[in-house]
Amino acid sequence: MTKNEMIYEGKAKKMWSTKECEDYLIVEFKDSLTAFNGEKKSEEVGKGALNNKISTEIFHLLEKNYIKTALVEMIDDNHQLVKKVDIIPLEVIARNIATGSLTKRLGIKDGTVLPFTLVEFCYKDDDLGDPILNDEHALILKAVKDQSELDYLKAEIRKINEILKDFFAKKGLKLVDFKIEFGKDKDGNILLADEISPDSCRFWDMETNEKLDKDRFRQGLGGVKVAYEEVLKRILS
Amino acid sequence: MTKNEMIYEGKAKKMWSTKECEDYLIVEFKDSLTAFNGEKKSEEVGKGALNNKISTEIFHLLEKNYIKTALVEMIDDNHQLVKKVDIIPLEVIARNIATGSLTKRLGIKDGTVLPFTLVEFCYKDDDLGDPILNDEHALILKAVKDQSELDYLKAEIRKINEILKDFFAKKGLKLVDFKIEFGKDKDGNILLADEISPDSCRFWDMETNEKLDKDRFRQGLGGVKVAYEEVLKRILS
Repeated sequence: MTKNEMIYEGKAKKMWSTKECEDYLIVEFKDSLTAFNGEKKSEEVGKGALNNKISTEIFHLLEKNYIKTALVEMIDDNHQLVKKVDIIPLEVIARNIATGSLTKRLGIKDGTVLPFTLVEFCYKDDDLGDPILNDEHALILKAVKDQSELDYLKAEIRKINEILKDFFAKKGLKLVDFKIEFGKDKDGNILLADEISPDSCRFWDMETNEKLDKDRFRQGLGGVKVAYEEVLKRILS
Repeated sequence: MTKNEMIYEGKAKKMWSTKECEDYLIVEFKDSLTAFNGEKKSEEVGKGALNNKISTEIFHLLEKNYIKTALVEMIDDNHQLVKKVDIIPLEVIARNIATGSLTKRLGIKDGTVLPFTLVEFCYKDDDLGDPILNDEHALILKAVKDQSELDYLKAEIRKINEILKDFFAKKGLKLVDFKIEFGKDKDGNILLADEISPDSCRFWDMETNEKLDKDRFRQGLGGVKVAYEEVLKRILS
Protein backbone atom coordinates (compact mmCIF):
# COMPACT_ATOMS: atom_id res chain seq x y z
CA MET A 1 0.00 0.00 0.00
CA THR A 2 1.24 3.48 -0.76
CA LYS A 3 0.44 6.90 0.71
CA ASN A 4 -2.10 8.98 -1.14
CA GLU A 5 -3.28 12.11 0.68
CA MET A 6 -2.59 13.20 4.26
CA ILE A 7 -6.01 13.34 5.89
CA TYR A 8 -5.03 14.12 9.50
CA GLU A 9 -2.10 15.38 11.51
CA GLY A 10 -2.26 15.21 15.29
CA LYS A 11 0.24 15.71 18.06
CA ALA A 12 1.92 12.30 17.66
CA LYS A 13 0.70 10.88 14.35
CA LYS A 14 -0.11 11.62 10.72
CA MET A 15 -2.67 9.62 8.75
CA TRP A 16 -2.79 9.04 5.03
CA SER A 17 -5.34 7.56 2.72
CA THR A 18 -3.95 4.76 0.53
CA LYS A 19 -3.90 4.61 -3.23
CA GLU A 20 -5.16 1.02 -3.24
CA CYS A 21 -8.14 0.82 -0.88
CA GLU A 22 -10.46 3.31 0.77
CA ASP A 23 -11.01 1.07 3.82
CA TYR A 24 -7.36 1.31 4.87
CA LEU A 25 -5.17 4.11 6.15
CA ILE A 26 -1.44 4.47 6.68
CA VAL A 27 -0.42 5.84 10.08
CA GLU A 28 2.90 7.59 10.54
CA PHE A 29 4.30 7.73 14.09
CA LYS A 30 6.00 11.07 14.68
CA ASP A 31 8.98 11.74 16.91
CA SER A 32 7.26 14.65 18.65
CA LEU A 33 6.49 14.52 22.35
CA THR A 34 3.76 16.68 23.82
CA ALA A 35 2.22 17.00 27.27
CA PHE A 36 -0.29 19.12 29.20
CA ASN A 37 -2.62 19.42 26.23
CA GLY A 38 0.22 20.46 23.90
CA GLU A 39 1.66 23.15 26.18
CA LYS A 40 4.95 21.27 26.60
CA LYS A 41 6.54 20.10 23.35
CA SER A 42 9.72 18.38 22.28
CA GLU A 43 11.22 16.09 19.65
CA GLU A 44 12.92 12.76 20.42
CA VAL A 45 14.50 11.13 17.37
CA GLY A 46 13.47 7.49 17.25
CA LYS A 47 10.47 7.83 19.57
CA GLY A 48 7.96 7.33 16.75
CA ALA A 49 9.59 4.06 15.69
CA LEU A 50 9.72 2.82 19.28
CA ASN A 51 6.01 3.55 19.83
CA ASN A 52 5.14 1.93 16.51
CA LYS A 53 6.97 -1.26 17.48
CA ILE A 54 5.67 -1.31 21.06
CA SER A 55 2.08 -0.65 20.00
CA THR A 56 2.24 -3.26 17.24
CA GLU A 57 3.48 -5.90 19.70
CA ILE A 58 0.74 -5.00 22.19
CA PHE A 59 -2.01 -4.99 19.58
CA HIS A 60 -0.85 -8.43 18.36
CA LEU A 61 -0.98 -9.71 21.93
CA LEU A 62 -4.50 -8.32 22.33
CA GLU A 63 -5.67 -9.80 19.00
CA LYS A 64 -4.45 -13.19 20.22
CA ASN A 65 -6.67 -12.64 23.24
CA TYR A 66 -9.78 -11.91 21.15
CA ILE A 67 -9.68 -8.10 21.31
CA LYS A 68 -10.68 -6.66 17.93
CA THR A 69 -8.30 -3.93 16.77
CA ALA A 70 -7.93 -1.65 13.77
CA LEU A 71 -4.29 -2.70 13.21
CA VAL A 72 -3.61 -4.57 9.97
CA GLU A 73 0.20 -4.67 10.06
CA MET A 74 3.35 -2.73 10.72
CA ILE A 75 4.73 -1.49 7.38
CA ASP A 76 8.12 -0.17 8.44
CA ASP A 77 9.79 1.58 11.40
CA ASN A 78 7.41 4.51 11.45
CA HIS A 79 4.32 3.24 9.64
CA GLN A 80 1.33 1.01 10.24
CA LEU A 81 -1.47 -0.06 7.96
CA VAL A 82 -4.78 0.20 9.78
CA LYS A 83 -8.47 -0.20 9.07
CA LYS A 84 -10.24 3.10 8.57
CA VAL A 85 -12.54 3.83 11.52
CA ASP A 86 -14.56 6.73 12.82
CA ILE A 87 -12.90 7.50 16.11
CA ILE A 88 -15.28 7.60 19.09
CA PRO A 89 -14.47 10.97 20.72
CA LEU A 90 -13.73 9.50 24.14
CA GLU A 91 -10.45 8.83 25.86
CA VAL A 92 -11.12 5.59 27.71
CA ILE A 93 -8.86 5.36 30.75
CA ALA A 94 -8.16 2.50 33.15
CA ARG A 95 -6.31 3.12 36.40
CA ASN A 96 -4.85 0.43 38.68
CA ILE A 97 -2.72 2.77 40.81
CA ALA A 98 -3.56 6.41 41.56
CA THR A 99 -1.16 8.94 40.09
CA GLY A 100 -1.18 12.10 37.97
CA SER A 101 -4.41 14.03 37.50
CA LEU A 102 -6.47 11.61 39.61
CA THR A 103 -4.45 12.31 42.76
CA LYS A 104 -4.75 16.07 42.30
CA ARG A 105 -8.44 16.04 41.40
CA LEU A 106 -9.64 13.74 44.16
CA GLY A 107 -6.94 14.10 46.82
CA ILE A 108 -5.90 10.43 46.63
CA LYS A 109 -2.29 9.79 47.66
CA ASP A 110 0.09 9.16 44.75
CA GLY A 111 0.86 5.45 44.46
CA THR A 112 -2.32 4.24 46.16
CA VAL A 113 -3.36 0.86 44.77
CA LEU A 114 -7.02 1.36 43.91
CA PRO A 115 -9.56 -1.08 45.41
CA PHE A 116 -10.70 -1.89 41.85
CA THR A 117 -9.66 -0.83 38.36
CA LEU A 118 -11.14 2.63 37.84
CA VAL A 119 -12.49 3.36 34.37
CA GLU A 120 -12.89 6.98 33.25
CA PHE A 121 -14.12 8.68 30.10
CA CYS A 122 -12.72 12.00 28.93
CA TYR A 123 -14.19 13.96 26.05
CA LYS A 124 -11.63 14.25 23.23
CA ASP A 125 -11.65 18.03 22.78
CA ASP A 126 -8.38 19.93 23.05
CA ASP A 127 -10.13 23.30 23.31
CA LEU A 128 -12.04 22.10 26.37
CA GLY A 129 -8.96 20.35 27.83
CA ASP A 130 -10.42 16.83 27.44
CA PRO A 131 -12.92 17.17 30.32
CA ILE A 132 -13.83 14.16 32.42
CA LEU A 133 -17.33 12.79 31.83
CA ASN A 134 -19.88 10.63 33.52
CA ASP A 135 -21.93 8.26 31.37
CA GLU A 136 -24.79 10.74 30.96
CA HIS A 137 -22.46 13.48 29.72
CA ALA A 138 -21.14 11.09 27.07
CA LEU A 139 -24.71 10.39 25.93
CA ILE A 140 -25.69 14.07 25.88
CA LEU A 141 -22.59 14.84 23.80
CA LYS A 142 -23.58 11.96 21.48
CA ALA A 143 -20.06 10.55 21.79
CA VAL A 144 -21.68 7.12 21.50
CA LYS A 145 -25.07 5.84 20.37
CA ASP A 146 -26.36 4.57 23.70
CA GLN A 147 -25.54 3.23 27.15
CA SER A 148 -24.84 -0.25 25.77
CA GLU A 149 -21.93 1.16 23.76
CA LEU A 150 -20.53 2.79 26.90
CA ASP A 151 -20.92 -0.50 28.74
CA TYR A 152 -19.10 -2.27 25.88
CA LEU A 153 -16.19 0.20 26.07
CA LYS A 154 -15.95 -0.30 29.83
CA ALA A 155 -16.01 -4.09 29.53
CA GLU A 156 -13.45 -3.99 26.71
CA ILE A 157 -10.94 -1.81 28.59
CA ARG A 158 -11.29 -4.03 31.65
CA LYS A 159 -10.44 -7.09 29.52
CA ILE A 160 -7.51 -5.25 27.92
CA ASN A 161 -6.33 -4.19 31.37
CA GLU A 162 -6.35 -7.78 32.66
CA ILE A 163 -4.40 -9.02 29.63
CA LEU A 164 -1.82 -6.25 29.77
CA LYS A 165 -1.43 -6.15 33.56
CA ASP A 166 -0.56 -9.86 33.56
CA PHE A 167 1.71 -9.55 30.52
CA PHE A 168 3.68 -6.60 31.91
CA ALA A 169 3.90 -8.10 35.40
CA LYS A 170 5.83 -10.98 33.82
CA LYS A 171 8.16 -8.38 32.29
CA GLY A 172 8.77 -6.71 35.65
CA LEU A 173 6.53 -3.72 34.95
CA LYS A 174 3.49 -2.42 36.80
CA LEU A 175 0.76 -1.18 34.48
CA VAL A 176 -0.24 1.89 36.51
CA ASP A 177 -2.82 3.32 34.09
CA PHE A 178 -3.44 3.74 30.38
CA LYS A 179 -5.60 5.57 27.87
CA ILE A 180 -7.07 3.99 24.75
CA GLU A 181 -9.34 5.02 21.93
CA PHE A 182 -11.89 3.10 19.95
CA GLY A 183 -13.33 3.56 16.47
CA LYS A 184 -16.18 2.18 14.42
CA ASP A 185 -15.48 0.52 11.09
CA LYS A 186 -17.85 0.83 8.12
CA ASP A 187 -19.91 -2.11 9.42
CA GLY A 188 -20.35 -0.48 12.83
CA ASN A 189 -17.94 -2.80 14.66
CA ILE A 190 -16.15 -1.13 17.56
CA LEU A 191 -12.40 -1.71 17.25
CA LEU A 192 -9.50 -0.75 19.47
CA ALA A 193 -7.68 1.99 17.54
CA ASP A 194 -4.91 4.57 18.00
CA GLU A 195 -1.94 3.18 19.95
CA ILE A 196 -0.86 1.65 23.25
CA SER A 197 2.64 2.84 24.09
CA PRO A 198 4.62 4.62 26.80
CA ASP A 199 2.98 7.81 25.46
CA SER A 200 -0.42 6.53 26.55
CA CYS A 201 0.43 4.20 29.46
CA ARG A 202 2.24 4.58 32.73
CA PHE A 203 4.73 1.78 33.45
CA TRP A 204 6.60 1.57 36.75
CA ASP A 205 9.44 -0.89 37.33
CA MET A 206 8.12 -3.64 39.60
CA GLU A 207 11.06 -3.41 42.03
CA THR A 208 12.18 0.23 41.98
CA ASN A 209 9.00 2.05 40.84
CA GLU A 210 11.18 3.83 38.27
CA LYS A 211 8.96 5.51 35.68
CA LEU A 212 9.35 4.10 32.17
CA ASP A 213 6.83 6.24 30.28
CA LYS A 214 5.94 9.77 29.17
CA ASP A 215 6.00 11.00 32.78
CA ARG A 216 9.80 11.18 32.27
CA PHE A 217 9.04 13.92 29.74
CA ARG A 218 6.11 15.50 31.64
CA GLN A 219 8.18 15.75 34.81
CA GLY A 220 11.48 16.60 33.07
CA LEU A 221 13.21 13.48 34.44
CA GLY A 222 15.27 12.90 31.27
CA GLY A 223 16.07 9.52 29.74
CA VAL A 224 12.83 9.40 27.77
CA LYS A 225 14.16 7.36 24.86
CA VAL A 226 16.14 5.02 27.11
CA ALA A 227 12.92 4.29 29.01
CA TYR A 228 10.92 3.59 25.84
CA GLU A 229 13.75 1.33 24.59
CA GLU A 230 13.65 -0.52 27.91
CA VAL A 231 9.90 -1.09 27.56
CA LEU A 232 10.36 -2.48 24.04
CA LYS A 233 13.26 -4.67 25.20
CA ARG A 234 11.15 -6.13 28.00
CA ILE A 235 8.17 -6.72 25.70
CA LEU A 236 10.42 -8.65 23.28
CA SER A 237 12.23 -10.55 26.07
CA MET B 1 -36.55 22.14 71.48
CA THR B 2 -33.72 24.47 72.49
CA LYS B 3 -30.19 24.96 71.21
CA ASN B 4 -27.44 23.19 73.08
CA GLU B 5 -24.02 23.27 71.40
CA MET B 6 -23.10 24.50 67.93
CA ILE B 7 -21.71 21.47 66.13
CA TYR B 8 -21.17 22.89 62.65
CA GLU B 9 -20.91 26.20 60.85
CA GLY B 10 -20.87 26.22 57.06
CA LYS B 11 -21.13 28.92 54.43
CA ALA B 12 -24.93 29.29 54.71
CA LYS B 13 -25.97 27.45 57.86
CA LYS B 14 -25.16 26.72 61.49
CA MET B 15 -26.23 23.51 63.21
CA TRP B 16 -26.88 22.97 66.88
CA SER B 17 -27.48 19.91 68.98
CA THR B 18 -30.68 20.11 71.05
CA LYS B 19 -31.00 19.85 74.79
CA GLU B 20 -33.93 17.44 74.52
CA CYS B 21 -33.00 14.74 72.02
CA GLU B 22 -29.79 13.54 70.43
CA ASP B 23 -31.58 12.44 67.23
CA TYR B 24 -32.57 16.03 66.35
CA LEU B 25 -30.65 19.12 65.36
CA ILE B 26 -31.56 22.77 65.00
CA VAL B 27 -30.49 24.41 61.75
CA GLU B 28 -29.99 28.16 61.56
CA PHE B 29 -30.18 29.74 58.09
CA LYS B 30 -27.60 32.52 57.79
CA ASP B 31 -27.91 35.69 55.73
CA SER B 32 -24.52 35.17 54.10
CA LEU B 33 -24.22 34.65 50.37
CA THR B 34 -21.18 32.91 48.91
CA ALA B 35 -20.21 31.78 45.42
CA PHE B 36 -17.27 30.31 43.53
CA ASN B 37 -16.31 28.01 46.40
CA GLY B 38 -16.43 30.88 48.92
CA GLU B 39 -14.29 33.31 46.89
CA LYS B 40 -17.17 35.79 46.49
CA LYS B 41 -18.96 36.66 49.74
CA SER B 42 -21.72 38.99 50.84
CA GLU B 43 -24.49 39.45 53.36
CA GLU B 44 -28.17 39.95 52.47
CA VAL B 45 -30.37 40.68 55.49
CA GLY B 46 -33.45 38.46 55.35
CA LYS B 47 -31.98 35.91 52.91
CA GLY B 48 -31.70 33.22 55.57
CA ALA B 49 -35.37 33.56 56.50
CA LEU B 50 -36.43 33.48 52.84
CA ASN B 51 -34.44 30.30 52.19
CA ASN B 52 -35.80 28.70 55.35
CA LYS B 53 -39.39 29.39 54.27
CA ILE B 54 -38.83 28.38 50.64
CA SER B 55 -37.01 25.18 51.58
CA THR B 56 -39.63 24.26 54.17
CA GLU B 57 -42.43 24.67 51.62
CA ILE B 58 -40.54 22.57 49.06
CA PHE B 59 -39.69 19.84 51.55
CA HIS B 60 -43.36 19.66 52.60
CA LEU B 61 -44.37 19.33 48.95
CA LEU B 62 -41.83 16.53 48.48
CA GLU B 63 -42.94 14.73 51.65
CA LYS B 64 -46.51 14.77 50.30
CA ASN B 65 -45.10 13.09 47.19
CA TYR B 66 -43.42 10.29 49.17
CA ILE B 67 -39.88 11.68 49.27
CA LYS B 68 -38.33 11.03 52.68
CA THR B 69 -36.64 14.11 54.12
CA ALA B 70 -34.77 15.06 57.27
CA LEU B 71 -37.03 18.06 57.93
CA VAL B 72 -39.15 17.85 61.06
CA GLU B 73 -40.57 21.38 61.17
CA MET B 74 -39.80 25.06 60.77
CA ILE B 75 -39.25 26.54 64.23
CA ASP B 76 -39.14 30.26 63.42
CA ASP B 77 -37.96 32.61 60.67
CA ASN B 78 -34.37 31.38 60.66
CA HIS B 79 -34.59 27.94 62.27
CA GLN B 80 -35.61 24.40 61.38
CA LEU B 81 -35.76 21.28 63.46
CA VAL B 82 -34.28 18.36 61.50
CA LYS B 83 -33.42 14.73 62.02
CA LYS B 84 -29.73 14.17 62.64
CA VAL B 85 -28.15 12.46 59.64
CA ASP B 86 -24.66 11.64 58.43
CA ILE B 87 -24.37 13.67 55.26
CA ILE B 88 -23.33 11.68 52.19
CA PRO B 89 -20.39 13.70 50.83
CA LEU B 90 -21.89 14.12 47.36
CA GLU B 91 -23.57 17.07 45.75
CA VAL B 92 -26.30 15.44 43.67
CA ILE B 93 -27.17 17.68 40.74
CA ALA B 94 -29.98 17.51 38.18
CA ARG B 95 -29.91 19.67 35.07
CA ASN B 96 -32.83 20.25 32.70
CA ILE B 97 -31.27 23.18 30.81
CA ALA B 98 -27.54 23.69 30.25
CA THR B 99 -26.05 26.72 32.00
CA GLY B 100 -23.18 27.62 34.31
CA SER B 101 -20.27 25.22 34.75
CA LEU B 102 -21.75 22.62 32.39
CA THR B 103 -21.64 24.94 29.39
CA LYS B 104 -18.04 25.92 30.08
CA ARG B 105 -16.82 22.39 30.80
CA LEU B 106 -18.46 20.66 27.84
CA GLY B 107 -18.94 23.49 25.34
CA ILE B 108 -22.74 23.20 25.35
CA LYS B 109 -24.53 26.44 24.45
CA ASP B 110 -26.08 28.26 27.42
CA GLY B 111 -29.84 27.69 27.50
CA THR B 112 -29.80 24.40 25.59
CA VAL B 113 -32.68 22.18 26.72
CA LEU B 114 -30.98 18.86 27.44
CA PRO B 115 -32.32 15.73 25.70
CA PHE B 116 -32.86 14.16 29.13
CA THR B 117 -32.36 15.29 32.72
CA LEU B 118 -28.64 15.06 33.38
CA VAL B 119 -27.63 13.82 36.83
CA GLU B 120 -24.16 14.61 38.15
CA PHE B 121 -22.27 13.85 41.35
CA CYS B 122 -19.69 16.22 42.78
CA TYR B 123 -17.48 15.34 45.71
CA LYS B 124 -18.20 17.65 48.65
CA ASP B 125 -14.67 18.88 49.34
CA ASP B 126 -14.00 22.63 49.34
CA ASP B 127 -10.22 22.16 49.21
CA LEU B 128 -10.56 20.15 46.00
CA GLY B 129 -13.18 22.53 44.58
CA ASP B 130 -16.01 19.94 44.67
CA PRO B 131 -14.70 17.89 41.71
CA ILE B 132 -17.13 16.14 39.38
CA LEU B 133 -17.23 12.35 39.73
CA ASN B 134 -18.30 9.33 37.80
CA ASP B 135 -19.90 6.46 39.71
CA GLU B 136 -16.61 4.61 40.14
CA HIS B 137 -14.89 7.64 41.66
CA ALA B 138 -17.72 7.90 44.20
CA LEU B 139 -17.19 4.24 45.13
CA ILE B 140 -13.40 4.58 45.38
CA LEU B 141 -13.84 7.63 47.64
CA LYS B 142 -16.28 5.55 49.73
CA ALA B 143 -18.82 8.39 49.48
CA VAL B 144 -21.49 5.68 49.48
CA LYS B 145 -21.54 1.98 50.38
CA ASP B 146 -22.14 0.54 46.93
CA GLN B 147 -23.55 1.08 43.44
CA SER B 148 -27.11 0.45 44.63
CA GLU B 149 -26.88 3.54 46.85
CA LEU B 150 -25.70 5.62 43.88
CA ASP B 151 -28.57 4.23 41.82
CA TYR B 152 -30.96 5.16 44.65
CA LEU B 153 -29.65 8.74 44.75
CA LYS B 154 -30.06 9.03 40.98
CA ALA B 155 -33.59 7.66 41.03
CA GLU B 156 -34.49 9.91 43.97
CA ILE B 157 -33.24 13.13 42.36
CA ARG B 158 -35.09 12.23 39.13
CA LYS B 159 -38.33 11.84 41.12
CA ILE B 160 -37.68 15.12 42.94
CA ASN B 161 -36.96 16.82 39.63
CA GLU B 162 -40.25 15.64 38.14
CA ILE B 163 -42.22 16.86 41.16
CA LEU B 164 -40.50 20.23 41.31
CA LYS B 165 -40.38 20.86 37.56
CA ASP B 166 -44.17 20.41 37.37
CA PHE B 167 -44.78 22.47 40.52
CA PHE B 168 -42.64 25.41 39.40
CA ALA B 169 -43.98 25.32 35.85
CA LYS B 170 -47.42 26.05 37.34
CA LYS B 171 -45.83 29.01 39.13
CA GLY B 172 -44.34 30.37 35.92
CA LEU B 173 -40.80 29.26 36.69
CA LYS B 174 -38.44 26.97 34.77
CA LEU B 175 -36.45 24.70 37.05
CA VAL B 176 -33.13 24.93 35.17
CA ASP B 177 -31.01 22.85 37.53
CA PHE B 178 -30.56 22.18 41.24
CA LYS B 179 -28.22 20.62 43.77
CA ILE B 180 -29.31 18.50 46.70
CA GLU B 181 -27.69 16.54 49.49
CA PHE B 182 -28.70 13.36 51.23
CA GLY B 183 -27.90 11.95 54.63
CA LYS B 184 -28.29 8.66 56.49
CA ASP B 185 -30.24 8.53 59.74
CA LYS B 186 -29.26 6.24 62.61
CA ASP B 187 -31.23 3.38 61.05
CA GLY B 188 -29.42 3.75 57.71
CA ASN B 189 -32.35 5.33 55.86
CA ILE B 190 -31.28 7.76 53.15
CA LEU B 191 -33.13 11.07 53.59
CA LEU B 192 -33.14 14.26 51.57
CA ALA B 193 -31.27 16.78 53.74
CA ASP B 194 -29.79 20.28 53.56
CA GLU B 195 -32.05 22.72 51.68
CA ILE B 196 -33.71 23.42 48.34
CA SER B 197 -33.76 27.17 47.74
CA PRO B 198 -32.66 29.81 45.23
CA ASP B 199 -29.16 29.28 46.68
CA SER B 200 -29.14 25.72 45.37
CA CYS B 201 -31.52 25.91 42.36
CA ARG B 202 -31.64 27.93 39.21
CA PHE B 203 -35.08 29.37 38.43
CA TRP B 204 -35.79 31.26 35.22
CA ASP B 205 -39.04 33.11 34.62
CA MET B 206 -41.07 31.08 32.12
CA GLU B 207 -41.77 34.08 29.85
CA THR B 208 -38.74 36.37 30.18
CA ASN B 209 -35.98 33.93 31.28
CA GLU B 210 -35.17 36.42 34.05
CA LYS B 211 -32.94 34.73 36.63
CA LEU B 212 -34.55 34.40 40.06
CA ASP B 213 -31.77 32.66 41.98
CA LYS B 214 -28.20 32.96 43.25
CA ASP B 215 -26.92 33.66 39.74
CA ARG B 216 -28.09 37.25 40.43
CA PHE B 217 -25.36 37.32 43.10
CA ARG B 218 -22.77 35.24 41.17
CA GLN B 219 -23.12 37.46 38.12
CA GLY B 220 -23.55 40.74 40.05
CA LEU B 221 -26.99 41.38 38.58
CA GLY B 222 -28.38 42.91 41.80
CA GLY B 223 -31.88 42.40 43.13
CA VAL B 224 -30.97 39.20 44.94
CA LYS B 225 -33.46 39.56 47.78
CA VAL B 226 -36.26 40.76 45.49
CA ALA B 227 -35.75 37.62 43.39
CA TYR B 228 -35.83 35.29 46.41
CA GLU B 229 -38.99 37.09 47.66
CA GLU B 230 -40.55 36.59 44.22
CA VAL B 231 -39.80 32.84 44.36
CA LEU B 232 -41.41 32.58 47.82
CA LYS B 233 -44.41 34.60 46.66
CA ARG B 234 -44.95 32.32 43.68
CA ILE B 235 -44.57 29.18 45.80
CA LEU B 236 -47.25 30.47 48.19
CA SER B 237 -49.53 31.67 45.39
